[in-house]
Amino acid sequence: METFQELGEFAFIDRIARHRLAGDVLCGIGDDCAVFALGEDRVRLVTTDMMVESVHFSREAAPEGLGYKLLAVNLSDIAAMGGAPKDAVVSVSVPADLDTGYLERVYNGLFACADRFGVAIAGGDTTKSPGPLVMNVTLTGEMGREQVCYRSGARPGDRVYVSGSLGDSGAGLAVAGGGVAISDGDRDFLLRRHHRPEPRVALGAALAGSRAVTAMLDVSDGVASDLRHICRQSGVNGVVQKARVPMSAPCRAFCRAAGRPELDLALAGGEDYELLFTVDPDRVDRVMLIAQRADLPPLHRIGHIEGGQGELFLEDEGGEREILQARGFDHFKESSSRA
Amino acid sequence: METFQELGEFAFIDRIARHRLAGDVLCGIGDDCAVFALGEDRVRLVTTDMMVESVHFSREAAPEGLGYKLLAVNLSDIAAMGGAPKDAVVSVSVPADLDTGYLERVYNGLFACADRFGVAIAGGDTTKSPGPLVMNVTLTGEMGREQVCYRSGARPGDRVYVSGSLGDSGAGLAVAGGGVAISDGDRDFLLRRHHRPEPRVALGAALAGSRAVTAMLDVSDGVASDLRHICRQSGVNGVVQKARVPMSAPCRAFCRAAGRPELDLALAGGEDYELLFTVDPDRVDRVMLIAQRADLPPLHRIGHIEGGQGELFLEDEGGEREILQARGFDHFKESSSRA
Repeated sequence: METFQELGEFAFIDRIARHRLAGDVLCGIGDDCAVFALGEDRVRLVTTDMMVESVHFSREAAPEGLGYKLLAVNLSDIAAMGGAPKDAVVSVSVPADLDTGYLERVYNGLFACADRFGVAIAGGDTTKSPGPLVMNVTLTGEMGREQVCYRSGARPGDRVYVSGSLGDSGAGLAVAGGGVAISDGDRDFLLRRHHRPEPRVALGAALAGSRAVTAMLDVSDGVASDLRHICRQSGVNGVVQKARVPMSAPCRAFCRAAGRPELDLALAGGEDYELLFTVDPDRVDRVMLIAQRADLPPLHRIGHIEGGQGELFLEDEGGEREILQARGFDHFKESSSRA
Repeated sequence: METFQELGEFAFIDRIARHRLAGDVLCGIGDDCAVFALGEDRVRLVTTDMMVESVHFSREAAPEGLGYKLLAVNLSDIAAMGGAPKDAVVSVSVPADLDTGYLERVYNGLFACADRFGVAIAGGDTTKSPGPLVMNVTLTGEMGREQVCYRSGARPGDRVYVSGSLGDSGAGLAVAGGGVAISDGDRDFLLRRHHRPEPRVALGAALAGSRAVTAMLDVSDGVASDLRHICRQSGVNGVVQKARVPMSAPCRAFCRAAGRPELDLALAGGEDYELLFTVDPDRVDRVMLIAQRADLPPLHRIGHIEGGQGELFLEDEGGEREILQARGFDHFKESSSRA
């Protein structure tokens, strides 16, 4: 017998991904969304995410935030392909003794997020649970077929960019646990970054429209893990420059107060939901134009792509390199739970 | 505080269904599938179903059957609109100590069903569970916009039909529990009807194509509950004739051996996944043609529609009527679990 704990989530996905691709499927298991042909020029994107009580959330957290985040993480997957979100269905498995007011507040958060991003919530399934509250969202999006940003298009010479700042969500999770002395303002910022991630939908669409992006995904497990997906699926190596990794002032303050190495949190803290992407060096000017838009988050060049077999390196300012370990989060390899 | 147990599944769905319908949504919460406009003449159908360990299945059952059934119940929802299935995404929440061989067998059953019905499994989400194994499938279908069979189109004078036979799955569930003396052949038939439901995809498409059907759904909770959905959503009454309710010989043998009233099982046993539909009386001949096709299940007229406000009656051969109670299955009103 081999348990899930031993095999790990990604290894299992590899195993089932060997199966099937048929019909209108342009891309199946292994990217942020499945991609289906829609007529000649368009594609339909589909993504699905499950959130399980005591793995992804605890019932002490605000229920509106839970509903908001459940849809937001799916929106982030649509953003990671460069698409426009359309509609969603929601399944929920409910403990029989749960207060209906709690679940209505979860749905209110979900509807608030749906309203903000123009998503129609069009149905679902409701069953009872013998244990944890479980919710699943399947979200659909659309976009032009030629603009889809897969994970597999990075080439040697490409620049590596990331939006916003890294590590805030991981810091927010730690802050929620208490015991770290930082200012109220820093605390609120980090908690919000953890509980109310901002899916980068408008940025993803702008980047896809630029035709400058060669590969893209959203940072859900940490750059150390997520850039590895791009490099392996593209058959290239990645180099991240230590000094360029963007961190917010509140996150740096948290690291100082908690005595945690900044880079560990920035590169291996999960759930940032920023966009990580590679850019054709001849088209960097197009990305510079997007970076200047006031309605979009800042963009930071953090490294570049080289020829190779999917390895990652961390480079200091003197040019010294070390191997960047995959310290990203793997549900089945990690024994602690993710609140 | 009001718990889910007290409020009930359908009442909660009514409460959240008051929200939102927007964009291309032709039909949202409240039918077998959500329906979205796809160009001028076509629609996209979406349905989602969650199966939870110890509510919908136990780990003693064959894992291939579990995977097969999870997709089959979603296919039944596509069939209930008259559509053709296309592609699916699968979410799974896995106890960390689960044997990976078990889950691979679940996926093998799912892939076998997908192959049989031409469905592309195009991705999913894998997370760990602190308790039960939870799986969710979201399935997409397509069909012509004018042919969609909603629940809300039944009119006074329509005939009520059902495919196949009723009660077999409920009998199979009871047989699996043991202690009832019936023949091996009857036992195998009933267990198969419970574990390997046959989604009526080809029948649903043929009925939708006939333009004779005014309302349709699949029998998931029992005719007593499911015909009520049609009647309430159409604003009519329904009459079921006792003598016409179709039951298989093995199911009748089970009822005799177990001392259970036949009609209770036939009308309120869940998970038959047959199609229940109403037919325009001027177009009954079109349905008769379909009923003669050797590749489709038999069709049985079990009653008719009258003017009214959503009430159901059971009529005996002498024309005496009694009110047909909703004895169908409601997850939150029923304390026993559904294996």
